[in-house]
Order: sequence, then C-alpha cells, then structure tokens
Amino acid sequence: MKKEVPFKGIIAYPITPFNESGQVDIGLYKQLLERLITSGSHGVAPLGSTGVLPYLSDEEKEAIVTASVQQTDKRVPVLVGVSSLTTERTVHHAKFAEQAGATAVMIIPMSYWKLTDDEIFRHYDTVAEQLSIPIMAYNNPATGGVDMSPALLKRLLQIPSVTMIKESTGDVQRMHYLRRELGEEVAFYNGSNPLALAAFATGARGWCTAAPNLIPELNNQLYEAVSNNNLDLAREVFYRQFSLLQFIVAKGLPRSVQAGLRIKQLNGGHLRAPLQQLTQEEYTQLEKLLGQ
Amino acid sequence: MKKEVPFKGIIAYPITPFNESGQVDIGLYKQLLERLITSGSHGVAPLGSTGVLPYLSDEEKEAIVTASVQQTDKRVPVLVGVSSLTTERTVHHAKFAEQAGATAVMIIPMSYWKLTDDEIFRHYDTVAEQLSIPIMAYNNPATGGVDMSPALLKRLLQIPSVTMIKESTGDVQRMHYLRRELGEEVAFYNGSNPLALAAFATGARGWCTAAPNLIPELNNQLYEAVSNNNLDLAREVFYRQFSLLQFIVAKGLPRSVQAGLRIKQLNGGHLRAPLQQLTQEEYTQLEKLLGQ
Amino acid sequence: MKKEVPFKGIIAYPITPFNESGQVDIGLYKQLLERLITSGSHGVAPLGSTGVLPYLSDEEKEAIVTASVQQTDKRVPVLVGVSSLTTERTVHHAKFAEQAGATAVMIIPMSYWKLTDDEIFRHYDTVAEQLSIPIMAYNNPATGGVDMSPALLKRLLQIPSVTMIKESTGDVQRMHYLRRELGEEVAFYNGSNPLALAAFATGARGWCTAAPNLIPELNNQLYEAVSNNNLDLAREVFYRQFSLLQFIVAKGLPRSVQAGLRIKQLNGGHLRAPLQQLTQEEYTQLEKLLGQ
Amino acid sequence: MKKEVPFKGIIAYPITPFNESGQVDIGLYKQLLERLITSGSHGVAPLGSTGVLPYLSDEEKEAIVTASVQQTDKRVPVLVGVSSLTTERTVHHAKFAEQAGATAVMIIPMSYWKLTDDEIFRHYDTVAEQLSIPIMAYNNPATGGVDMSPALLKRLLQIPSVTMIKESTGDVQRMHYLRRELGEEVAFYNGSNPLALAAFATGARGWCTAAPNLIPELNNQLYEAVSNNNLDLAREVFYRQFSLLQFIVAKGLPRSVQAGLRIKQLNGGHLRAPLQQLTQEEYTQLEKLLGQ
Repeated sequence: MKKEVPFKGIIAYPITPFNESGQVDIGLYKQLLERLITSGSHGVAPLGSTGVLPYLSDEEKEAIVTASVQQTDKRVPVLVGVSSLTTERTVHHAKFAEQAGATAVMIIPMSYWKLTDDEIFRHYDTVAEQLSIPIMAYNNPATGGVDMSPALLKRLLQIPSVTMIKESTGDVQRMHYLRRELGEEVAFYNGSNPLALAAFATGARGWCTAAPNLIPELNNQLYEAVSNNNLDLAREVFYRQFSLLQFIVAKGLPRSVQAGLRIKQLNGGHLRAPLQQLTQEEYTQLEKLLGQ
Repeated sequence: MKKEVPFKGIIAYPITPFNESGQVDIGLYKQLLERLITSGSHGVAPLGSTGVLPYLSDEEKEAIVTASVQQTDKRVPVLVGVSSLTTERTVHHAKFAEQAGATAVMIIPMSYWKLTDDEIFRHYDTVAEQLSIPIMAYNNPATGGVDMSPALLKRLLQIPSVTMIKESTGDVQRMHYLRRELGEEVAFYNGSNPLALAAFATGARGWCTAAPNLIPELNNQLYEAVSNNNLDLAREVFYRQFSLLQFIVAKGLPRSVQAGLRIKQLNGGHLRAPLQQLTQEEYTQLEKLLGQ
Repeated sequence: MKKEVPFKGIIAYPITPFNESGQVDIGLYKQLLERLITSGSHGVAPLGSTGVLPYLSDEEKEAIVTASVQQTDKRVPVLVGVSSLTTERTVHHAKFAEQAGATAVMIIPMSYWKLTDDEIFRHYDTVAEQLSIPIMAYNNPATGGVDMSPALLKRLLQIPSVTMIKESTGDVQRMHYLRRELGEEVAFYNGSNPLALAAFATGARGWCTAAPNLIPELNNQLYEAVSNNNLDLAREVFYRQFSLLQFIVAKGLPRSVQAGLRIKQLNGGHLRAPLQQLTQEEYTQLEKLLGQ
Repeated sequence: MKKEVPFKGIIAYPITPFNESGQVDIGLYKQLLERLITSGSHGVAPLGSTGVLPYLSDEEKEAIVTASVQQTDKRVPVLVGVSSLTTERTVHHAKFAEQAGATAVMIIPMSYWKLTDDEIFRHYDTVAEQLSIPIMAYNNPATGGVDMSPALLKRLLQIPSVTMIKESTGDVQRMHYLRRELGEEVAFYNGSNPLALAAFATGARGWCTAAPNLIPELNNQLYEAVSNNNLDLAREVFYRQFSLLQFIVAKGLPRSVQAGLRIKQLNGGHLRAPLQQLTQEEYTQLEKLLGQ
C-alpha cells in the first residue's frame, strides 16, 4: 500500500476565538483561518493545542470542523485534531472529521494514566479501522503526558493509515532516530517552534506552527530557503524569527496569538478560563518582538 | 476564620467499575465503596485518578457522586474529585457535589496549557466563591501536568475554603517546605503510595490511597503505629506493604486494583479503553504480592 | 564471613582548613576535629566532600589522615575518604589509610567518563583485594558524576570487605529499594542532610553529615529520639534544624561550615580557590539560622 | 581589542595511549596525532576528555603537551586542555602550555563542589591574567559537573582572552541563545557529536570531535558541505556517520576510539583503569559501524 502523505511545508494552527459571553465565535474563526490561507500556509490544522481542543465541548468541536472545511474550500489540505482521553470519543470525532471532508486527522494519545505501549497501539488501531483518511501520530509529552518512543512510533507506522509523525519534544536527536529507524522516506513533522531550523536541516517534511497567525512571511521564507538548499539564507531568516518563536512557546500559543493579533490591530476574540490574557509586561515584550 | 479540616488517616480511593457493555456499574460501585468503609478507612474519595475521573461523562460523574453520598451515609467523610480543564466545568461539578452532600471537594489544576500561577489562583478562587464546603488543593504534576510550587500553595491557602493540600510528587522535601513555609498547623496529605512512611514521619495528616481496595489492614496498621508514636512498628508494617505499593503505582491504580480484586475473588468489573487489563505476567506478579 | 560494620549514629565530617598562604593548617584541623569528638559524634570522616578531598595533593591528604588518627586516639571510629579518579591512586590512598590506623575507608567511584557497572565493580574489587579494613561504598551522583543503581550496590556487597553503603541521592525511595533488595541487615547510611528524618524513619543506620561542625546537639538529639522510638520528638527536633541543613547544602558544605564557625567565634581558617567565602547576604542569612 | 579566534572546522581530539605496563606511550601518541593532521583536521586538541586528562599525572600532561607541539610543527593550531580542580593547578598548566607553544588553551570549570557564577568567573579571570594566548571556555555538565548558563558565558566573554566557547550539552537551543545573546560574531563550537549537523546549521564555527580518529573523511565532508552552503549534501553525509557518532558517545570516546583503531588494524595502545576495553558485543557492533 502506498502511504498517502498530504502535508508538507508550513502547516498553520488557528486559535479558537471566543466572544464576550464565552461562546465560540465561528464568524471570527473563519476570518482568522482565511488569513492563514491567503498568507501562504501550505495547510491548516484546526483543533490543535493552539485551538484549545481540550477546552471545547463536542458541539463546539464539530462546529469548528465544519467551518474549517467550508472556509478552506480545498485550497489547502485540512488536518483536524481529534484527540480525546477515551478511545470511544476519539473514534467519534475522527469519523465526524472524515464525513465533514477533512484531509487527515491528528491524534495524540492524551493520557491521564500513563498508557502502556500496547494500550497506545490498540488506541490508534481501533480508530484506524473505522477511518479511510490518513492519520498523523503526534508525540508531545509536555501537553499529552505520554512520550512515545521511536520504537513505538515505528510500530504505529505498521498501521496502514498512520502515514505521518509529528514530533514536538524539541529534541533534535529524536528526528535523527526516526530517520535512521524508519528510513529516509518516513514523513516526520516538527511541532517545536524554536527547533524549526534544526528540524528542517535534519529532513523534516513540514513545520506545524501557530506562528503564521503573526509572522507568516518569515515562516514561509524559512521553508523556501530550505527547499532551495540555501542554508545560509535559512539561518539568517531563522534568527530573525527566533525570539518571537521562543516567546509564543514560553507564554502559551493561544494567549500569545490572541495578544499578537490585537497588537497587529486585528480581532483575536477572548480566551476561555482558566486561560487569562498576557500581563501588561508580557504584552509590551510582544509588541517589541512584532516591531510595533 | 477557623479552617475546617474534615480528613485524617487513611482516605480510600474507589475505582469506577464498568460493565461488559462499557457503562458505569453503579450497583457494583456501591459494593466496592462499602468494602472500603467497613474495612476501616477514615474517609473515601470518589472520582480521583483511581476512579478514572477524566474518562467519565458529566452524567456518569454525577451518578457516582450521588451513589457515594448515599452509600456512605455519613459514616465517614466523602471527598469528591471535581477537577475539569475549564473553570466553568469545575464550578459546575463542585456545586453538584456540595448539593449532593459531599464533605469536601478535591481540585487539581488540570492543565493542557501550562497555566501561570495567576491563572491557577483565579481558577481556585472562582470555584471557592461559589462553594461553602472546604477544598483540598491537589498537586500532582504526573497526572495534572502542572507542578504547583510551595509558594503557590501558600497563596492558595489564603482562600478561606482551601484548607487542605494533597501532595503527590513523591518528594519528601516538598512536605518539609510546606510545613516550614505554612506552619505546623497546615493540613497536608500524602498522595504518593511509596512515600507513605516518610510522609507520616514528616507530619502528614493523612494518606490518600487506592491500596485499601486490596490491603486495608496493612494501611490502617501503618497509620495506627504512627498515631501511637511507634516508629519501629510503623517501619516494619511499611516494609510489609512496600512492594505492593510500588507495583500498583508502576502499573496504574485502576488496572492494578481491578486485577487485584479478581485475585481476591471479588468482582472489579471492566476497564474503559484505552486502559487494558494487566498482562498475564503482571497478573502473576500481583498474585505473589497479594500472597495468593 | 561476618560483615564488620563499625559505624552508626552521627558520623561527623570535618572541613580541611587552610592558612593565609593557602597551605593546609594541620594544627587548626586537629582543633576542629577535637570539637566534633567531644561534642558527641559517634564517628568522624576526614577527607570527605566537606574536607575538599579532590582539592588536596597526595601529601596533604596523607597529613590529614595521620593527624586524624592521632587526634582521635580510638575514642571514635575513623572513616577515611580515599576516592581518586584512577584505580591505582585509590589503592594507594586506601593502603595508606589502613597503615595509618583508619577504621574503614569510604570510596565513591569518581568519574570523568561515565563508568560501566563492570568498570565500577572491578574498581572496588581491586581495592578490596589489597585491603583488610572494611569499605563503605558511596553513591552521590551530584559530586561523583556516577549514579550506582541498587542492583550495582547489591553486586558490590558481594565483595566481603564492602560492608556499608552511603546514599546521598536524597531520594528516600532508594533506601526502600536497598532495604528490600539487600535485606533488613544491610547497613546503609544517609548522606543527604535534608533527608535525615526520613532516612532514619526508613531504617538508616547512620547519618554522614557536616552539620555537627555547627549544631552537634540538635544532630545528636535527632539520633537519640529515633533510637528511643520516639517519632514525635524526632520530628520536632528535625524541624528545628531543617532550615540550617538546607542552607549548608545549598551554599556548599565547606563554605557554609567555614562561615558558620566564624559566626560562632571560632576559627575556620581559609578556603582554597576556586571556592570563595559566602557573600555578605548569605553570611547574614546563616547568622539568623544559627540564632546569632 | 580584536578577539583572536584561531580555530574553525574539524578540531580533532587524540586519545592518550598507554603501554602494557600502564605508562603513557609518547611514541605511539605522536603517530596517532600525525594521522589526525594528515587526514585533514583543521586543528588538534590534546588533553581533552578523549585524552583522559583527569587520569594523568602532571608530568604525563606536560609530556603530552610537548609532544603535541613538536609533532604538529605549526601545520595546524593546537588547543591544549588545562582544566584542573583548583585554580592554582589550572594556572600552572596553562602557563606550561603557553611556554611550550600551544595556540590556545581550553578550560572547563571542573567542579566537585557546585561552583557559583562568581567563583567560575574569578577562576577564568585569574588564569587569563597570567596568560597571553586565547582561552576557549568549555561547557559540559556531563563531564565537568557544572552547567554554565548563557548569561555566565556572556560574562566570561568580557575577559579579553576568552574568545571562544565550546558547548557540549547537546541542546541546540543553547546555540540559538548564544548567538542571540552574544551576537552574530561570537565564536562557538559544538562538542556534542550527534549534534554536528544541527550545530553547523545554527552557525557553529567548528566541531570538536574524536571521530576523526576513525572516520576523518566523513567528518571533513560534512564541514565542506556546510561551508559550500549545500544543506542537502550535508544532511546526506551526516546520516552516513550518525550511527557511529552515537555509538562512540554512548560507549565513551577513549574506549571506542581505542577499539576502533584496533578494528582498523592500527595500534591504539592500552586503557588506564578504571576504564576497561569494550565488551565483545560492543566490539562487534563497532566493527559493523566501521564497515569492517
């Protein structure tokens, strides 16, 4: 079976904006998604960490999926986050995404209890059996609570529809291992913003990032430089965005993007508690980083 | 304001059992809870990690709370876990618990995004404002994803209804800090099973544990020895249960308790996916540890 | 073969004082050692970390050993640190200590390169073959650079003259493992000051500490309370010294003891570079902790 | 003052070979050093970790320095490791190296006690005052026991003769910080073998490595590809050596190089205890990695 790998380049993560009374603002969401597409992202990824997936009710998640597919209208591929704590809920959301027209789904084995390798494999396998679109397996111990070893990721790739791996540990050695253990053809993606240059250097196929909400040109230029085999330019472009990448990771992607949009005189809506706005000091720092 | 501290000694955590078709089995739950009470636990704590709180729907959580209060019938105090990712859901469940008759609620600041200290304080404060029963603040980076510093815990204790702290990092130094920073009268509880002896030695007021599902006598004897100022006996009793405590933590509390009940020829019901039963090898190990 | 275990209780670590021109001050050293003995320590341990072993030349080390045995004059047992980076130098110093009249030697597998378990075993075994006094194996990853697993420590105990283990990781679980894996009769000692209470609770036979240079009465009272099976008193006495124990570990034992002696209007001599005196702020903190 | 930076590219670390009776074999050392020079290294670095600096007596160190300068005969620059635990010994060895004709010295703040930032700064400053050749400050917590922050490294660069930084933490983010904090012109070098590609991508000026003892062509090709701004080729060349780089780090550089030379039918001499030869299994692995 030929592995279907529909993503490469800059895969942009929209935030989920809320209105003043705390409800998801679908109209505003569509505007923010449109900006990501028209500014040159090669794919979009609703319901990631940036989109505060775990803070949404089932109905809210479904509204976001439907809006994403409609708004994108096949201009770029759509990667939908469907991670849930139980297997049953994960299947439910994955099937919804497929029926709504998503290109692929992304699944992190969210853990409250530390899951065994067998439990994680069974989790992915159960979802895959009921799905016909590809799956991106996502490793991010910091948010998911589970650290999938390269050996486990290799095992997951035996499931035909698991065709992509997103690595967010921020450890470049993981990418070396993946490439050595899984072969040159494995499609791995970087999810750690400050690792963008090193990850592309090691052969990452794409960069999953919330940064295009704020600095799409710099993000795109980095990918183009790498694609053109121009390391010197890639390095230069990377260092021009490094401080911002660090900032948005340190302060949290939804909080930073929401404030950054305000700084750029765009509407980023409201956050959902317990998340709170950046402090004034953080806001001022971000203004400087955005050159405003 | 006098701080109300309704818990001490052995605070027992029931599992949430499922039937073959994957639904919560309330009848069986009541039987398991009854065993914890009649075997001598000084309090019970439904909807903890052991009770797979994050895997349950809102309706299931509410059914467990109602059943717990009814079955306990004021023989021992009832501590209900109400942690949710958003503040709004936490308030909802805390109010339900209070109305149902719970003695106190336990809240861990569940995190997907790493919350700031201000966000965590606001989270607790918002819940406390709408509640009149005491709150136990729970620190467990391994499951909650957030590590609250002693300084933050000190700040939380300024909220009048936050009267108890549960520490599950497994680091005995944390308890030294808590006692030094918060004074001799601070009510802290140990949630790390293999730390039971050391925690009581440092002055922990109680032990939050799933072990009474399997070895209630040994758990109670440890507390009694400490209460009687008999360190030599406490040490001896602790080492008799240490290997089992390590095992249930290493293999996961719901999985271990469910299997252990089976070994003791009791009905522990089924697990909810992604959790899977112990492997045969693990089961055999547990049989030996339970002396069966 | 009966294991010879000559140490228990409070094992006190003297500093190595220097004079103004940077040479070891043997006369002052003897005075400081005498204070440790007459204030009630159950053993003394020259050339530990507190005695800046790695900063001394071979001649200086030998002068300290000779002075220690003479001054102690068999009133308490003497444990001499003989750790060196190469096996050859370790054998040399261990034989010197034995001939000078030391009761036992302490060896940490100092590492520049991370040694394998086989290399460490061979290191101890080579020394033991040329020695007839007992050896205390010392585990302290923070200063030695190697973390010996409980399994390796168990293997080391197969060498007849390795009869004692000193654990300084500060992790009380290590002591639980040692006791379970090695049996109730294993002689283990705690080398982590802030763990003193918890370690005695778990069954440590002694406490290796620099604290008797400053607060011998409190150290002795803790051991007596534990020996008398009085946990409540032990806890109370421990919390009275906890802040000081933390301080001397955080700021470094030689620096803290040297300053503390000055505060107590005693002569602690000078330090050897790169070590520098406490800052004025640290000095003031220590004054408060010593109640002066 | 213009900062003098005499190193770039591949900086090769020779081992220190011993003869059967355990003495340094200077004749063999010169042969091994000659191989490093003639195979194209851009600099050589005697008395590094690879050269087991801490296992040598003062006389042995001095013999190695003299032999290195003679054998190199100005064909490439010579970087001499002079790290010692005390400041006095570090000054001694640095002055010896300068007088013998070394190009620069490398200093890691070897620590037994965790040194404060002030102690480390004073240590470097004291050495620099007595020296007229440049100093490379070396950060390697794994062997040196101290982790110098980017802020401290920035402070060290205020000392005029500290002109180069070697980073061996293996964390690519450190290099991003260094470049951002210290400016584009800071000369930093990578000392973590598996990070070679990522480090060059981020702008490292050289690679300090023992690998040229075994695979000099691949090491040189990586540097050339980067210098030619050919990322695709650099990536390809890196993956051809990655498994070997990992192996020599995991098993220890002196042990791996000594065995690898034997596999290549060259004489690597003997090791000094506690170091022991590779096991048979490790040796067989290394044979495969070297394609023999």
